[in-house]
Amino acid sequence: MTTTEVPAAMRAAVDAAKERVAALHAELPRWELVVWTAGNVSERVPGTDGHPDLFVIKPSGVSYDELDAEAMVVCDLDGNLVEGTRNPSSDTAAHAYVYRHMDHVNGVVHTHSTYAAAWAARGEEIPCVLTMMADEFGGPVPVGPFAIIGDDSIGRGIVETLTGHRSPAVLMQNHGPFTIGKDAKAAVKAAVLLEEVARAVHVSRQLGEPLPIPQDAIDSLYARYQNVYGQR
Amino acid sequence: MTTTEVPAAMRAAVDAAKERVAALHAELPRWELVVWTAGNVSERVPGTDGHPDLFVIKPSGVSYDELDAEAMVVCDLDGNLVEGTRNPSSDTAAHAYVYRHMDHVNGVVHTHSTYAAAWAARGEEIPCVLTMMADEFGGPVPVGPFAIIGDDSIGRGIVETLTGHRSPAVLMQNHGPFTIGKDAKAAVKAAVLLEEVARAVHVSRQLGEPLPIPQDAIDSLYARYQNVYGQR
Amino acid sequence: MTTTEVPAAMRAAVDAAKERVAALHAELPRWELVVWTAGNVSERVPGTDGHPDLFVIKPSGVSYDELDAEAMVVCDLDGNLVEGTRNPSSDTAAHAYVYRHMDHVNGVVHTHSTYAAAWAARGEEIPCVLTMMADEFGGPVPVGPFAIIGDDSIGRGIVETLTGHRSPAVLMQNHGPFTIGKDAKAAVKAAVLLEEVARAVHVSRQLGEPLPIPQDAIDSLYARYQNVYGQR
Amino acid sequence: MTTTEVPAAMRAAVDAAKERVAALHAELPRWELVVWTAGNVSERVPGTDGHPDLFVIKPSGVSYDELDAEAMVVCDLDGNLVEGTRNPSSDTAAHAYVYRHMDHVNGVVHTHSTYAAAWAARGEEIPCVLTMMADEFGGPVPVGPFAIIGDDSIGRGIVETLTGHRSPAVLMQNHGPFTIGKDAKAAVKAAVLLEEVARAVHVSRQLGEPLPIPQDAIDSLYARYQNVYGQR
Repeated sequence: MTTTEVPAAMRAAVDAAKERVAALHAELPRWELVVWTAGNVSERVPGTDGHPDLFVIKPSGVSYDELDAEAMVVCDLDGNLVEGTRNPSSDTAAHAYVYRHMDHVNGVVHTHSTYAAAWAARGEEIPCVLTMMADEFGGPVPVGPFAIIGDDSIGRGIVETLTGHRSPAVLMQNHGPFTIGKDAKAAVKAAVLLEEVARAVHVSRQLGEPLPIPQDAIDSLYARYQNVYGQR
Repeated sequence: MTTTEVPAAMRAAVDAAKERVAALHAELPRWELVVWTAGNVSERVPGTDGHPDLFVIKPSGVSYDELDAEAMVVCDLDGNLVEGTRNPSSDTAAHAYVYRHMDHVNGVVHTHSTYAAAWAARGEEIPCVLTMMADEFGGPVPVGPFAIIGDDSIGRGIVETLTGHRSPAVLMQNHGPFTIGKDAKAAVKAAVLLEEVARAVHVSRQLGEPLPIPQDAIDSLYARYQNVYGQR
Repeated sequence: MTTTEVPAAMRAAVDAAKERVAALHAELPRWELVVWTAGNVSERVPGTDGHPDLFVIKPSGVSYDELDAEAMVVCDLDGNLVEGTRNPSSDTAAHAYVYRHMDHVNGVVHTHSTYAAAWAARGEEIPCVLTMMADEFGGPVPVGPFAIIGDDSIGRGIVETLTGHRSPAVLMQNHGPFTIGKDAKAAVKAAVLLEEVARAVHVSRQLGEPLPIPQDAIDSLYARYQNVYGQR
Repeated sequence: MTTTEVPAAMRAAVDAAKERVAALHAELPRWELVVWTAGNVSERVPGTDGHPDLFVIKPSGVSYDELDAEAMVVCDLDGNLVEGTRNPSSDTAAHAYVYRHMDHVNGVVHTHSTYAAAWAARGEEIPCVLTMMADEFGGPVPVGPFAIIGDDSIGRGIVETLTGHRSPAVLMQNHGPFTIGKDAKAAVKAAVLLEEVARAVHVSRQLGEPLPIPQDAIDSLYARYQNVYGQR
């Protein structure tokens, strides 16, 4: 089924998602996760009244200075453009694949953040040696396969790596990180924390071997953080 | 004894502390000590008229953009919420433990700053090889035990490590730094200088072994800085 | 043939180029590619009505705070000053040489960005181990010869290294990067992405050997990025 | 001879120097050379009408947010306070010593910038492997002796190391850099470029040995930069 315009019943939800996604894009340069026009954030808009889900994503190759809500584009879950005057991000197919195959995921972020990319270039997972990592990722951050744009191989690599894994982040080999979340904000948070732990663990290992955290402590930290931290 | 609201006699002091603590939180992202909502600053408000001490601290999981004085929360020294519409920081118990056991401490700061966390992940103290370190820390910055949230073990680790030690900073293993001070500003200053010396000594050791500073020079620098530096 | 003033037929094009080049200079400190007054951007203004080409470039030794359109200077393709109250950049001869010998190049950027300079100081090309590198550079970033200011040796080194090479960037040995593009914006983009990949590949190699990307994948990524990415 | 107030004949020159020195202090955090209140800039005000020279310097332990012209203090060349409501920088004696013994120096800057401090902690000079270094420093950046505050040993170490040396920067062992210049702006520029080359050469050496620059090329670059670069 193809959708050629945003259904009236979903207009308000789409517009609200555009506002959120535009604002969240500003977090990527703020936390130095991107340069130039690299990186993108998307959020799913659940279908209502029998209409299929849509998602809001960044247009391709547009400066971070121009990313207001109006510049955002809307796609269906096959990655086709539904609304917007610009081409969607060249990573749209990967985002769409994730939304089609992971029902609980409503936000996806992709960056080339420096330290995460450095681990990805070696194809090496980040070991869980900081409590901040146990909190957010529940263990090591895994590596996904080498895959290039052009078919579903990036999306499939993300989904296969993260399915059944606690980590909301995957390091796609020789490429960079993708993060997922219950909404776009959660995926952006995972992208920010990922780069921080990628950097801190890298720096730690430059002068020796970090001490491991016992598995039961990792489990306990992860459970608490997912259930207690923040405002309820 | 439990306190369920801020006593009228302490209102002005609590409000002034809220202003100070809110303003000091802005120093954490300014000096790149934190990402997202990580990190927290607190300050003790000494009890008056027989009322017990309180302390002002950051709410849990709130963005640095929203941290004005009104957002701050007030706790008693057992870590119970006394005033505020949000949950206190998930590190509140550790702050409270420090205030209960270290009478001269009126400010506590916790961050996950990158280079300090990197030393902490190796469980390795930072050697005193820079005069700036001798000035502020009076010697190496020590490592505290591995401890996780859930009981008093973090607070106890901080107090046991720093008691009788010149350093106002401790690197909690696999976790990150806590700093203390005569007020919140002094603890923030220690957190800022800690990250700077953690980075500079790390960088220095990447290409060789830094030269030691003789103990008598460390003693002399520390004594001068604590007694003469700044405005009196 | 010497030109001693901007021909009336080229006035509008020169003024527009001044605006663009001034604005693009702000990208250099924004992405931390330069310190103090180092670095420069230029753009060719094609000759019309039989007048020869000119180019707009930064004046020498002027602070980034003062670089508005009016401060820009105009030179002919021999590097002689045609318009402006200040001396042109001391790298003007190198820019001019590139414009004289590479007809398809309309923008040139020179920086001393840290990680690119570090590879240049070792005279070592940056291997292509990240998809972002394959996209923009189509392979490794090559090293040009050691050459110093005073004759055409820098310009010649740039042209000889980049002719027939996919990469829009060259690392001049012991010096720093020069990038080229179809306009000044493209050359600035290459300078920004160059520093990012120089940093990420450096970081990756600090802890092991990055995995190579197969040549056919590099070719495919490069072809797609040059032809499909962005807005058409 | 002691001076107890700014002579009327020097009032305008002192006030102009206060403006310049205050504005130049903003360059230190801008280029990330300092944290908290560390670092200081001074400028000599030559004596007129038989009055001895004075110099303007930063007060001790004051935040960079508060450093306007009015906050600056004035000292005589013995380091005594002549004007100002705050204590002068704790490094005042070192600045004063330099002004007493190096007549051509009219500006002095001291920072603890990270990478320069890292070389200083190893007591290792920075080799001249980048053309930017040859331009500004004319060769390697030398190391000065270990010396602590309390007598003239820091000032003497600076003067002995830099006398007869091309470099306007010295790395005081286990401490950090001091830079000198014909005015305060030149000394600030040297401090900015020093940290940049300290970082780039450090990064370069992390993955191998940088290539040396031939001495005659260093000489030629230095001569050109000192005599031709910038606006005359």
